[in-house]
Amino acid sequence: MIQLDINCDMAEGFSRSRQSEDLGILKWITSVNIACGLHAGDPHLISRTIEAALRHNVKIGAHPGYADVQGFGRRSMNLSVNEVYELVLYQVSALSGMTRAMGGELHHVKLHGALYNEAAERPELAEAVVSAIADINEELILYALSGSKLVEAGLEHGLQVAEEVFAERAYLPNGRLAPRELEGSVLISKEERMEQTRQLVLKQKVLTVNGQHIDLAADTLCVLQEGPDVLQFLVDLHRWAKQNGVSIEPIMAR
Amino acid sequence: MIQLDINCDMAEGFSRSRQSEDLGILKWITSVNIACGLHAGDPHLISRTIEAALRHNVKIGAHPGYADVQGFGRRSMNLSVNEVYELVLYQVSALSGMTRAMGGELHHVKLHGALYNEAAERPELAEAVVSAIADINEELILYALSGSKLVEAGLEHGLQVAEEVFAERAYLPNGRLAPRELEGSVLISKEERMEQTRQLVLKQKVLTVNGQHIDLAADTLCVLQEGPDVLQFLVDLHRWAKQNGVSIEPIMAR
Amino acid sequence: MIQLDINCDMAEGFSRSRQSEDLGILKWITSVNIACGLHAGDPHLISRTIEAALRHNVKIGAHPGYADVQGFGRRSMNLSVNEVYELVLYQVSALSGMTRAMGGELHHVKLHGALYNEAAERPELAEAVVSAIADINEELILYALSGSKLVEAGLEHGLQVAEEVFAERAYLPNGRLAPRELEGSVLISKEERMEQTRQLVLKQKVLTVNGQHIDLAADTLCVLQEGPDVLQFLVDLHRWAKQNGVSIEPIMAR
Amino acid sequence: MIQLDINCDMAEGFSRSRQSEDLGILKWITSVNIACGLHAGDPHLISRTIEAALRHNVKIGAHPGYADVQGFGRRSMNLSVNEVYELVLYQVSALSGMTRAMGGELHHVKLHGALYNEAAERPELAEAVVSAIADINEELILYALSGSKLVEAGLEHGLQVAEEVFAERAYLPNGRLAPRELEGSVLISKEERMEQTRQLVLKQKVLTVNGQHIDLAADTLCVLQEGPDVLQFLVDLHRWAKQNGVSIEPIMAR
Repeated sequence: MIQLDINCDMAEGFSRSRQSEDLGILKWITSVNIACGLHAGDPHLISRTIEAALRHNVKIGAHPGYADVQGFGRRSMNLSVNEVYELVLYQVSALSGMTRAMGGELHHVKLHGALYNEAAERPELAEAVVSAIADINEELILYALSGSKLVEAGLEHGLQVAEEVFAERAYLPNGRLAPRELEGSVLISKEERMEQTRQLVLKQKVLTVNGQHIDLAADTLCVLQEGPDVLQFLVDLHRWAKQNGVSIEPIMAR
Repeated sequence: MIQLDINCDMAEGFSRSRQSEDLGILKWITSVNIACGLHAGDPHLISRTIEAALRHNVKIGAHPGYADVQGFGRRSMNLSVNEVYELVLYQVSALSGMTRAMGGELHHVKLHGALYNEAAERPELAEAVVSAIADINEELILYALSGSKLVEAGLEHGLQVAEEVFAERAYLPNGRLAPRELEGSVLISKEERMEQTRQLVLKQKVLTVNGQHIDLAADTLCVLQEGPDVLQFLVDLHRWAKQNGVSIEPIMAR
Repeated sequence: MIQLDINCDMAEGFSRSRQSEDLGILKWITSVNIACGLHAGDPHLISRTIEAALRHNVKIGAHPGYADVQGFGRRSMNLSVNEVYELVLYQVSALSGMTRAMGGELHHVKLHGALYNEAAERPELAEAVVSAIADINEELILYALSGSKLVEAGLEHGLQVAEEVFAERAYLPNGRLAPRELEGSVLISKEERMEQTRQLVLKQKVLTVNGQHIDLAADTLCVLQEGPDVLQFLVDLHRWAKQNGVSIEPIMAR
Repeated sequence: MIQLDINCDMAEGFSRSRQSEDLGILKWITSVNIACGLHAGDPHLISRTIEAALRHNVKIGAHPGYADVQGFGRRSMNLSVNEVYELVLYQVSALSGMTRAMGGELHHVKLHGALYNEAAERPELAEAVVSAIADINEELILYALSGSKLVEAGLEHGLQVAEEVFAERAYLPNGRLAPRELEGSVLISKEERMEQTRQLVLKQKVLTVNGQHIDLAADTLCVLQEGPDVLQFLVDLHRWAKQNGVSIEPIMAR
């Protein structure tokens, strides 16, 4: 039976701001990546999200990004390798300690935004990220873009790695995500998203922007929270999984 | 004929974050209050909002708040009177200069969040705010909570003042807004909101949380953007205005 | 033999900014309170300071404050009790995890600025702070203003508490620190500072701003880094301690 | 008679932080570049610095940088050309409005840190910066690295440009500043700094890190505030200028 983890990024706002997140989404996912306060998120919002995740029995991950609130961590920043190590160390430490104090245990780490994309490409950044995670806790599972340099770095370091794919992001021929600036980089139609999910989960393949099919391992599927109908999409996903012998469940530590 | 300005707070996020604002709302309002970067907003989002407001011929205001991104400017901060003066000076200057550079002219100033509420109560803060505005441009119109100390301070200083009422916020017997922490402080049902608007605009009265009617001047009506059906509410408001001889139009400088 | 811990606040800037801290001060102190990134400090500066403290065998503490960079955590903010709990949880978790990953162990927590002063007065804030610390690690030592409500809350909760006195801050008759806004709130002359230290350490007394002597327990002495001659003052302090049978050493966990 | 403007970057901290700036330096310089709040600086510190500059009759400039407090604006950020335009527009508008409200007039703009260096190299960034300045006020004088692309962009746009040289920064053979990461990039010895100043001012030449002399126009000389003996250096500079027929005076608008 095929196993599939469904993850979602959360706490990516500020606790008193106008837009509040629908915590109800936690009913339909198996792991959550919680913003750590530097690209978004603050102690109150983080804490509320940890609490809700524990209540829904969803695996908790840290979601560290560049310290760039105005750019939402989506702008590349020219940090040294040491700075990247320290940036990840700080954020994962904060989430790990908070989760434990609230009665849980941090399960995984998934990078955010520009840091996610850059560590997927640049081995020296990947190495800095992986070292920081391992220095905190070697049991943490690394969620990394399927087929990327970060996957390699994690495995070399002896970390458990979950290769991540996206239901709603368009792919380039080299297996990287089409940049958000590009038109069509986020799949809007329900059919496209379902079709991409089907291919990824059942065949471990994806159709890229230039019409090619490429191979991609798919341990965990990221669902974007900002879609207009994310809850409906998740319900459909669960129904489809049931009908196709796919078991939606969290990634278990070895 | 009764004249009514409809205003809305905008640019209260960050330009690359997940939640993006519906600029379409500008079609239905006559003045916009733009966040200035300290409680929310960044140069790119501010600039995009100014541009859209100019395109829709909507009057542009600055919406300064406390420098507290995590608390969205909704937490009181213990600033000195000088610090409040400088805080407002900085933010209104930024918005005024940007608007002018982009071919427009700043029209008004409306405070945000905790600063809005505190300047409504405390004469020394009101005085600091009013001085800052007047030192930038004495033609700027001050939007202030109807019946508040800030209205008084503005008038004493010779500023043009627009008394502001809220379609969707519950009122205390003293004419202040019920704090957001209180249940029922934001009116959800369309009927309640329309009814409150009707009373405010046609009778210059409002029903407070303890069932009393009090008098409130109503030059400008604030509509909250975060409602689930804000566009529909605005369309209804325009229809109702037409049927009741209310002219929806911006406040004109003397 | 009288034992005295000497502590100092550090990492209270930003790593690439103009003013860099003299890490040499670590040679002369026995414990350091490291800023946690919300009122000041960033992952790189924090990490560099932890590293230096480990090298100098100085006990490492977390120094959490309000999330107010512009006000340097010195302005009171109107947070809920929950927000204070979460604020401390986030910051102490970050420091604790970083210290452990770098081969050390967090030893204590000392609040910063307005949070330090407010938790000394208000039992409900003190309780929130103490709960956050205990939820992370009950072995952490709480540094708290000597004689304050925070000392009481810590003891009630079963935490080990070190009562803190200041060599360079003027005291009010009630044992609280004279506010920084007051003239004379920071002692400048070397003689005054040495005399206040002598009284505090040898007699557990201090002379307040109105000329009264009051009793104050003195487990740990805070030395301000910003003095023009802090290194000389520390050297003098060590010489004086030697001559007076005072042993300068860190506070040991029970 | 040779004319020389001496400029210095100021307000590059936060108003309540430990390190406070020596405003006495204003006695010895003819123009000041004031941080605008995004890489450093806050409304209170900015305002205090404007006030002191007006009192000392020193020309006031805006000193905008990347929105990166942790990195002090010294890390390159991957902004779009539009974002750079808006970033500069926001910051210069804030400073311009504040200066005018306080009875002065903004005189010039000098970029900070990574933005300074990148706009010196990349014509499309230079163009964005120059457009923002001109859209605010075409009378503003652009301070730009002598011989850089930013000088060209300013002249093409019709702005008055002051070519800037540094007394204390080492130069590369191409006329760019040696990166701060390099050993020796900041000249420490008084003799070196005086000698570099002499060559720059009297001969419009500089000795680069590889021992070559290159030509550099020198309208304005930047003196770094963080030197241990900046006041003494400035006094020496004034004495030397007097003896060598150099008139220290601000750059006059055409």
